[in-house]
Amino acid sequence: MADLLPGNAVIGQSGGPTAVINQSLVGVILGLRAGGVGTPGNPIRKILGMRHGVNGLTKGLFHDLTNLHRDRLEVLARTPSAGLGSTRDKPDQEYCERIFKSCEENSIRYFFYIGGNDSADTCRIVNELANDRGYALRCFHIPKTVDNDLVENDHTPGFPSAARFVAKACMADFLDNISLPGIKINVVMGRHAGFLTAATALARREEGWDRFNDGPQYVYLPEVPFCTDSFLQDIATAYEATGRCHVAVSEGIRDTSGVSIGAKLIDQAQIDPHGNVQLSGSGALGDLLAGLIKKHLAPLGGKPPRVRADTFGYVQRCFPDQARVDSYEARGVGRYAARLALSGELDGSVTIKRISDPSTGQPYAVRFERVDLSTVAAKTRQMPEEFIKGTNDVTQAFMDYAMPLVGELPLYERL
Amino acid sequence: MADLLPGNAVIGQSGGPTAVINQSLVGVILGLRAGGVGTPGNPIRKILGMRHGVNGLTKGLFHDLTNLHRDRLEVLARTPSAGLGSTRDKPDQEYCERIFKSCEENSIRYFFYIGGNDSADTCRIVNELANDRGYALRCFHIPKTVDNDLVENDHTPGFPSAARFVAKACMADFLDNISLPGIKINVVMGRHAGFLTAATALARREEGWDRFNDGPQYVYLPEVPFCTDSFLQDIATAYEATGRCHVAVSEGIRDTSGVSIGAKLIDQAQIDPHGNVQLSGSGALGDLLAGLIKKHLAPLGGKPPRVRADTFGYVQRCFPDQARVDSYEARGVGRYAARLALSGELDGSVTIKRISDPSTGQPYAVRFERVDLSTVAAKTRQMPEEFIKGTNDVTQAFMDYAMPLVGELPLYERL
Repeated sequence: MADLLPGNAVIGQSGGPTAVINQSLVGVILGLRAGGVGTPGNPIRKILGMRHGVNGLTKGLFHDLTNLHRDRLEVLARTPSAGLGSTRDKPDQEYCERIFKSCEENSIRYFFYIGGNDSADTCRIVNELANDRGYALRCFHIPKTVDNDLVENDHTPGFPSAARFVAKACMADFLDNISLPGIKINVVMGRHAGFLTAATALARREEGWDRFNDGPQYVYLPEVPFCTDSFLQDIATAYEATGRCHVAVSEGIRDTSGVSIGAKLIDQAQIDPHGNVQLSGSGALGDLLAGLIKKHLAPLGGKPPRVRADTFGYVQRCFPDQARVDSYEARGVGRYAARLALSGELDGSVTIKRISDPSTGQPYAVRFERVDLSTVAAKTRQMPEEFIKGTNDVTQAFMDYAMPLVGELPLYERL
Repeated sequence: MADLLPGNAVIGQSGGPTAVINQSLVGVILGLRAGGVGTPGNPIRKILGMRHGVNGLTKGLFHDLTNLHRDRLEVLARTPSAGLGSTRDKPDQEYCERIFKSCEENSIRYFFYIGGNDSADTCRIVNELANDRGYALRCFHIPKTVDNDLVENDHTPGFPSAARFVAKACMADFLDNISLPGIKINVVMGRHAGFLTAATALARREEGWDRFNDGPQYVYLPEVPFCTDSFLQDIATAYEATGRCHVAVSEGIRDTSGVSIGAKLIDQAQIDPHGNVQLSGSGALGDLLAGLIKKHLAPLGGKPPRVRADTFGYVQRCFPDQARVDSYEARGVGRYAARLALSGELDGSVTIKRISDPSTGQPYAVRFERVDLSTVAAKTRQMPEEFIKGTNDVTQAFMDYAMPLVGELPLYERL
C-alpha cells in the first residue's frame, strides 16, 4: 500500500437522489474504516460528510461520520434519498476557490463524490483545480443515477431499483387497464436516456409476447424521434383491436429536430443550474398527450375513448424497495472507491462492467473498474441501438440485459 | 343450515380495482367450496365469475371458477386489480331486465358483488328487482374501496394497502425533498373522503412531531373547505422557516361552496356513468397548485422557489404490496359472504367493525357483520371530525386508527 496522506476524508452526494445512494455512502465509510481510518496511528483521521454536497463543503457544513455506529449505518444504507443532503450546484472557478479553502481549512485530502455525469464533472473540475494549485487532493467519483446514462458503465447504481419500481407499477397498472379498459399513458423519468422507460417492458409476462394481450403495448424512448401521427396511429391500432391501450412514454421524448416535446409545452418552465428545463414534477406532458388522443382518436361504438395519463414522478427514484443487485452493488462501488484511495490511487471514477454475456444464459456477474474522471464526466450514454426495436418498442436483448438487475417480480394470475 | 336453492353462484367485481380485490374473490370461491359447492349432491353446482361485472353478466360472459386449482387461486389472490375485469356500469330498469334474463338463463341463485358504494347500490337494485319479480336471488355485497368511504365499516378492504403505498411513497418523497429542498405537492386519490390523503401523515416518524422537521407538513382534505390564501400562507410559513415545504393534497379538495377545485379546472373533463368528473389520470390539479405557488410566493434569498407537483395516480390503488391486515380481511369478507349465503341469509352487505379501541393500546381486532344492503348503498362516509385537525392536518386519533392497518413501514435513519 502506498503511503497515505495525512488528513481527513470527505464524502458528498449530488444530483437526484436514489433508493440506494446511501448504500454507496455507507460503502465508502466502511471501506475507509476497514483500512484503519479513524483508528489511532492511521494518517487519515476523520470521515466527514458534506451537507448538500459541495454547497455544504464550501460553508464548512459537515457530519462527522468517523464513529457513527454500525447499526445506524445499516439503517441509513436502506434509507432512500441522500442522507447527507444533495445539491445541483455546478462549481465554477470562483466556487472551486471556496471548495479549496474549505478543504485546506478542514485538512481534507480524500474527496469522494457520489453522483451522475454532472457530479463526475464537478469531481473532475475540483480535481484539476487541486492539481493546478499543487494541493494534493485525491478525488473519486462514485456512480449513481436512475437514468442509467453514465458512459463506461454497464449500468449505474439506482437504476435497478428505479427499474424495479417502474416494472412493478406498470404491471399493476396494466392489470388495472385490462380490468377497466381505456387508453392509459404512463410518463417515466429519463431526460436523455430511455433505459428507465424501457424497463416498463419488464412488466410483460406472457410467453411469446402478444402486443394486444400484454402491456405496456408501446414504449416511446427519447432516442427515437417522436412523431405525433405515428403515436396516434399506434394507439388507434391497439384501441380498435381490443378497446384499450397501455403505453409508456419517456419524459424526454423529442421531435425529429431534437426538440423536447415536454419542454416545448410546459408553462412557467424552470431551468436548473445545469441549463436543464424542468420535466419532472409536472403532469403537463402526460396531459398533453391525453388531450391529443381525445381530440384525434375516433370513437369506438359511439363512445369517446376513456383516456388517462399518469406521471410516475419522484417516487420512482426513491421508492423504498431496493433491488437486491442494486443494494449490493451500490454498497460495493463505495467500498471499492475507498479501497482505491487507500491503495494510493490519485483519482478516478468507479465503473461497473458486466463480465457475463446476457445472451449466453451464464449467471449475471460484474466487476468494478477505475477509469479516468474525464472519461465519464459530463458525458451522456443513451440506449444502444441493439436495445431499440422500431419506433415504439425494446428488443429481447434489452430484456435479457435488464431482467437480472431488477430481481424477482411478483407473480400474477390472469383468468 | 337452511335449505339451499338449487342453482349456480355468480361473483362480480365492480368499480376501481384495488391491490386486494382478488383476495375477496378467492374468499368467496373458497367459502362456497368449503360449503360443498361444486361437489356432487350439493344443490349449488357452479361458481361463475362475471366478466367485467354486470356488463359481462348481461352478455353471458363468465369464467367458470368451480374447479380452478387452489394454486392458481392463491396466485390470483396476490394479483392486483380485478381478475374478472371490472365495470362502472350502473344498471337502470332496462339493464336490470337483462341481468335477470341472464340469471334465469344461467340458473343463478347466488349473486356476490365486490365493490364500493355504487356497487352496493347496483346490488340493492338487482335485489329489489328480483324480489319484485318473485325470482329468488340471494344478493350479497362485499366491501372494497381504496377511498375507505363506505358507511357502517371501520375501514374497507383496499384502503390499508393503498394507505401503505401512499405512506411509503410520501416517506421516500419527503426524504427526497429535504435532500434537494423545494416545495413539493403530492396529489392523492379520494374524491369525497380524505382517508387516503390523511394516510400520508403515516410517513411522519419523529417523536413529538415537529412540522418543520418532518413531512408531510400540511395535509389538505376534501372534508375541509380549501382556501387558496390559507394554502399559500401555510406554504410560505414553512418555506420561510426552512427553505422547503412538503404537502399532501386530496384530488377532491373543494372550495367553500363545495365546488371541486380540480373539476373546475380540468379541460376536456370526462364524466363517468355515475356523473362523476374525471379527477384521476391527470396532473392538472397538481400543476395548477404549483403554478399558483410560483406566481404568489415571494422569492427567498433572491431565488424563486423550486416547486414540483406529483399526482400519485392509479399506481396507488393497485401497487403489488398488500398490507398484511388487508390481504387477510379482504379474503375474510369474501369468505364471510359465502358463509352467509350458505347459512340461508337472503341478502346483505358484509361490513368490518373494529372491536378494539385504538386509544387503549389493546391489540387491533375486528369482526365481520352483515347489514342491510340499503344501509350501505350509494352512501358516502367522510373523515369523522375527530380525525381532522384544523384546516391542514390530521389528529393523533387518526394516526392511532390507521397505523395498525398499514402494517410495518420501512425504518429510516436521518443524519
